[in-house]
Amino acid sequence: MGDPLGKERARRLARLQRAKVRRETGRMLLDSVPLVREGLGAGLVEEVFLYPGGHPALREEALRRGVPVTDADPDLLRRMSGVETSAGAAALARLPEPLTLDDGFADGPLMLVFLDAVADPGNLGGIVRTAAAFGAGAVLIGRDSADPTAPKALRASAGALLRLPVARCVDLGTLADALHSFTLLRATAHGGVDPERLAMGPRRLLWVGNEAHGPGPVPEGLSVTDVTIPLDRATESLNVAAAAAVLLHLMR
Amino acid sequence: MGDPLGKERARRLARLQRAKVRRETGRMLLDSVPLVREGLGAGLVEEVFLYPGGHPALREEALRRGVPVTDADPDLLRRMSGVETSAGAAALARLPEPLTLDDGFADGPLMLVFLDAVADPGNLGGIVRTAAAFGAGAVLIGRDSADPTAPKALRASAGALLRLPVARCVDLGTLADALHSFTLLRATAHGGVDPERLAMGPRRLLWVGNEAHGPGPVPEGLSVTDVTIPLDRATESLNVAAAAAVLLHLMR
Repeated sequence: MGDPLGKERARRLARLQRAKVRRETGRMLLDSVPLVREGLGAGLVEEVFLYPGGHPALREEALRRGVPVTDADPDLLRRMSGVETSAGAAALARLPEPLTLDDGFADGPLMLVFLDAVADPGNLGGIVRTAAAFGAGAVLIGRDSADPTAPKALRASAGALLRLPVARCVDLGTLADALHSFTLLRATAHGGVDPERLAMGPRRLLWVGNEAHGPGPVPEGLSVTDVTIPLDRATESLNVAAAAAVLLHLMR
Repeated sequence: MGDPLGKERARRLARLQRAKVRRETGRMLLDSVPLVREGLGAGLVEEVFLYPGGHPALREEALRRGVPVTDADPDLLRRMSGVETSAGAAALARLPEPLTLDDGFADGPLMLVFLDAVADPGNLGGIVRTAAAFGAGAVLIGRDSADPTAPKALRASAGALLRLPVARCVDLGTLADALHSFTLLRATAHGGVDPERLAMGPRRLLWVGNEAHGPGPVPEGLSVTDVTIPLDRATESLNVAAAAAVLLHLMR
């Protein structure tokens, strides 16, 4: 057993709440029991922090995998993770290996999601969680989206961001060749086709955009169909994660 | 023009971030431009707070409706609303008149949502926003759900909580007679019927439950069908707001 987590180290680890520090160090924080468990399963965790005597099953799993467990005062854990309702469990983990798209995509039926400029980390994580549940093979994240290693995104994804292959800083325009065999659907609030009336091939990509401004322009060389979920009240609108859920359900 | 918002008054108004104070005073805070606009439209706003010279259209609309506008320093507005990213607009508003169900429900086709014990205000507001978009006629909120007048719920609802009739502290068991003509669907994570295979009457109620524990038990006298959205990966799960979006889309 090593020393328990000290104030100074907790303060240093808390810096991982910032995107820049995560990028520079290649490390992130997992701040809930399910996330720590996912991280262990994905082989990403370097050190688990638990309050003394807490979460015996998680402690055992970490030790079985050869991951050191450090005792930590719940107050320090809260300060480290920035989460008010810390469950007394956290982990220091490597960032997931990013998916590189040099070789295009696997053959056969495949569903992908492209998060163009989804700004809210809760929306981003929520959409990835839904995509995983409906069998998406990978997630593509554009340059202007929220950071998928942000604690709020990880929590909202219920760990799906640690399970699914995730490509970052994706520019769809550079993937025109690889996406040639795909039905590309771009979710728009107005003016698109009713997605229920659409014939789709077995390879599908859903493109969702920014909460306020919608998706960006279609790059040259891509053939994209705009889809709009018909609403019963024209004055209403759907949250981007709710719209993505409805569309991914139709596309699964 | 009255005096600008002072520190002491901002501090007193900030107490409306707490459910107990909202209940006791019958007042709530609206802390974004769209919410203030919705609140004005619903006739609920008693006073609008704007930074000097800010949001001229909103200022004009308030004054046209005879609602006083008070100048407010953005820092004080932030402290009052507890929102980091305050847009420099807020309002003091009456709580919406609760829907009472003594006379049952209107005749004809009708979609209702029952939020049994949805604990997260963001999920609660998000589901109400989706329900409004798919034409729900009213929202029923159970005793153990998040507070629909909480700032986070109001924001997530994009104002739908101010537009739709909302009944609170609802016990479905006491509504058995009024719900006799309804198809009642209870969303469950496992073991329910595929909702796409279900015949529904023109009067429908979707019952969604707690994020961790699902919906509560069926009261005597109600005939309820459990529905489960089939997932491609059994180990995954849907967030309650995503599940509600898929189901409300099927039920609309």
